Amino acid sequence: MKRFIKYFLLSIFIIPVSLTSAQESIAEDKANYVFLFIGDGMGVAQVNAAEAYLAAVNGEAGFHNLTFTRFPATGYMSTFAGNRFITGSAASGTALATGYKTNISRISMDPDGVKPLKTIAERSKEIGMKVGIISNVSIDHATPAVFYAHQPKRSMYFEIGYDLVQSDFDFFGGGGFIKPQGTIGEVVIDLMEEARKNGFTVVNTRDGFNDLDNTSGRAIAISPRLDKNGAMPYTLDMTPDDLSLADFTVKAIELLNNEAGFFIMVEGGKIDWACHANDGACCIQEVIALDKAIEAAFGFYEAHPQQTLIVVTADHETGGMALGNNTVHYDLNIELLKYQKSSNDHFNEIVADFREKLSGNDTIDYAKMLEIIRNDFGLGHKNKVPLTEEDMKRIKTAFYTSMYPGDDPSTNLTYGGYEPLTITLSQLLNEKAGIGWTSYSHTGVNVPVYAIGVGAEKFSGTIDNTDIPKIIESVMR
Amino acid sequence: MKRFIKYFLLSIFIIPVSLTSAQESIAEDKANYVFLFIGDGMGVAQVNAAEAYLAAVNGEAGFHNLTFTRFPATGYMSTFAGNRFITGSAASGTALATGYKTNISRISMDPDGVKPLKTIAERSKEIGMKVGIISNVSIDHATPAVFYAHQPKRSMYFEIGYDLVQSDFDFFGGGGFIKPQGTIGEVVIDLMEEARKNGFTVVNTRDGFNDLDNTSGRAIAISPRLDKNGAMPYTLDMTPDDLSLADFTVKAIELLNNEAGFFIMVEGGKIDWACHANDGACCIQEVIALDKAIEAAFGFYEAHPQQTLIVVTADHETGGMALGNNTVHYDLNIELLKYQKSSNDHFNEIVADFREKLSGNDTIDYAKMLEIIRNDFGLGHKNKVPLTEEDMKRIKTAFYTSMYPGDDPSTNLTYGGYEPLTITLSQLLNEKAGIGWTSYSHTGVNVPVYAIGVGAEKFSGTIDNTDIPKIIESVMR
Repeated sequence: MKRFIKYFLLSIFIIPVSLTSAQESIAEDKANYVFLFIGDGMGVAQVNAAEAYLAAVNGEAGFHNLTFTRFPATGYMSTFAGNRFITGSAASGTALATGYKTNISRISMDPDGVKPLKTIAERSKEIGMKVGIISNVSIDHATPAVFYAHQPKRSMYFEIGYDLVQSDFDFFGGGGFIKPQGTIGEVVIDLMEEARKNGFTVVNTRDGFNDLDNTSGRAIAISPRLDKNGAMPYTLDMTPDDLSLADFTVKAIELLNNEAGFFIMVEGGKIDWACHANDGACCIQEVIALDKAIEAAFGFYEAHPQQTLIVVTADHETGGMALGNNTVHYDLNIELLKYQKSSNDHFNEIVADFREKLSGNDTIDYAKMLEIIRNDFGLGHKNKVPLTEEDMKRIKTAFYTSMYPGDDPSTNLTYGGYEPLTITLSQLLNEKAGIGWTSYSHTGVNVPVYAIGVGAEKFSGTIDNTDIPKIIESVMR
Repeated sequence: MKRFIKYFLLSIFIIPVSLTSAQESIAEDKANYVFLFIGDGMGVAQVNAAEAYLAAVNGEAGFHNLTFTRFPATGYMSTFAGNRFITGSAASGTALATGYKTNISRISMDPDGVKPLKTIAERSKEIGMKVGIISNVSIDHATPAVFYAHQPKRSMYFEIGYDLVQSDFDFFGGGGFIKPQGTIGEVVIDLMEEARKNGFTVVNTRDGFNDLDNTSGRAIAISPRLDKNGAMPYTLDMTPDDLSLADFTVKAIELLNNEAGFFIMVEGGKIDWACHANDGACCIQEVIALDKAIEAAFGFYEAHPQQTLIVVTADHETGGMALGNNTVHYDLNIELLKYQKSSNDHFNEIVADFREKLSGNDTIDYAKMLEIIRNDFGLGHKNKVPLTEEDMKRIKTAFYTSMYPGDDPSTNLTYGGYEPLTITLSQLLNEKAGIGWTSYSHTGVNVPVYAIGVGAEKFSGTIDNTDIPKIIESVMR
């Protein structure tokens, strides 16, 4: 009987409570400062790998939480595209930016690639907020592009870049442009020139970056060091001179902080690249780099908890990553990844250098390569990652395949189109560390969502990538 | 869906108004009826595979939601054991049942295997609730055992079974006993006899099962059909005559429903078994079977929303499963799994039968086996799953290895200790369907948590397996 009375009282009291001023102010809380972090290719395993690695190298049990894995609201998000179950960054990014499902390769355009779809960043701008777009891959790459550009194909880099310099957004930061020059009709266009004409301050040096402040107006800040794809270096290859994803995020907050609010999107784009190459060590460092950028946003949230929303998610998973494989069975040795000193990209250059010398009729110094491998991966170092005879055979075969590529199509199948020696070393280290991979491509598993701040709880449960901008908009002023 | 959202919003708004009198009465809402569902080995990919499969065979895009993936609260749960990062069912089950981390193989005992740890089921019993424990693997298996038994090793099946028949719990259902007889000192004990002596009604027929009702008193209901491991048949091998996990759940609710409340644990134990064998088709059917059991609990929740809590989680992930692999790249064909007609266990019997005939000096009828393969897996059927020459070679090699096992240790490595032909067929079908696997063992990735009902929102965020019984207890009366 008591129970019945209690519920009766409850039902009476629920209604009056909703009319109290406390409740009203809660219901009216609106996010004035919105951060959307996208870990490209970041599934649950990528996040957990970073946490397990940090715990292992710190001598802790289990997982060392990242900033964003301590967020109170968590969800599962489906990522499928309009015309393919396993999505790509353009289609999934379009869903995250516009709330619409589209087909593979579209940049915020409808499935037919005809009609542009308005993005959450453009809507933010319309209501007077400032907008910043940051990525550590090139700024015209699919994920950043879906927030400011509208093109039928992600490969239309010049057109995407032109949309960027024509946009009324306030800050672009991180990587550079894949096609900084192009033509419209017969007119040759230089995007940087065009950007300056349209009122952007453009910097690509550390001094220029340091000089940017909230009096600089609209700005494009490009990393002083870029790789051949216009991307910032892998975190594993960075020196203290390099600007990090966190540096760009801190700068965006400084430049865009204003009473009318802001929308800032930050992409950790190299998680995906590392996972395509099944490179666990690089993947982990890229997740940690994204977390450091999130830390900057979290500091801002702590100062403005009732006006800030931070959402962290991914566009899809890459690689079918797992913490366990048939080499280690039940004994994960994730700390072995610490012996990898550089990214696969950087090691490719070493391999290319060897191959170069070869065409100059130099003799192949395989012993020298084994020494580099011991140093750069710990592989073959008896106190780091000892190798079996079988392992040594795999390395030797891959080395000679890298030196004399030939044109056997089965080589491409075996090595997934990657530099045979590099991918073999990466695979060997991952196998021994216990990191499993099922694919060089994306996979279709749901990706995680983490949120804190105004409306964070709405990201709980099982949602779709098209829900993200809808929920954000519902809690924005 | 609206219902979920409404309920969840209510629970969100509760926090800020925690000082009003209404809030106080809400804060006293307590879960009188608690369901804990454990999908053994069920990571995010296992759940998504079931949803993607259902959508694909129904001709829908993306995912067909299960009952539990529509629950409003979702979390990520770490599973590591006291002495190993990649856990086992005993250690992780102990965490789920007691709130303590322990070492591999312990059944609700401390890491040294000395001190028993009280379980949430025992606490429920202490405060007058009824308790039911259900599993579709043997009822003395690690996951069910951790709720009622205290033993240093999971392999002590007789001692675990003896703990079961000595317990004061109200219902045990599903699988049978691995060691139904044993000795204590010099006394031979028959567990079923002992159970009856201790007041249990014991049934193992459909009629006996049907006759059980809320006047039957305490009961042990064993599936009329069991495999050689004392487990219920795989869902894929079931006939309309078999009792399902849902049947046992419905029966438990009928028998245990009383004003003092109940705690019911239901394990979907064969998800793990299917994933150890990298058998995607079986895994999916087992996830769906668990969901049907959850549907029964959800019906009860709908009738008692303010007194019921349903939590769905897993003890660990098994297999490093992914929706994507290097055979299909971006083109998942998960609907191909529909051509698999029986479990790997069932197919093993067919292979054993062939081998048997062989020792009787029969000639090997490989053509006959290919016909069975076409029929049971669709492999080699031109309208179902066409095979390449390379595939045919793999099948032939595996077939002859199954027929003439020999004692080459590399065979074990190649086939993971499984029947060579069966595992090869399963792998081929999984590869073509796009299901990737990294391991025959468990992996260390966080597993999902889904919750609905009283206190559900407390399962949001990143939690540990030891948090589960603590949170449940905090919301129980």
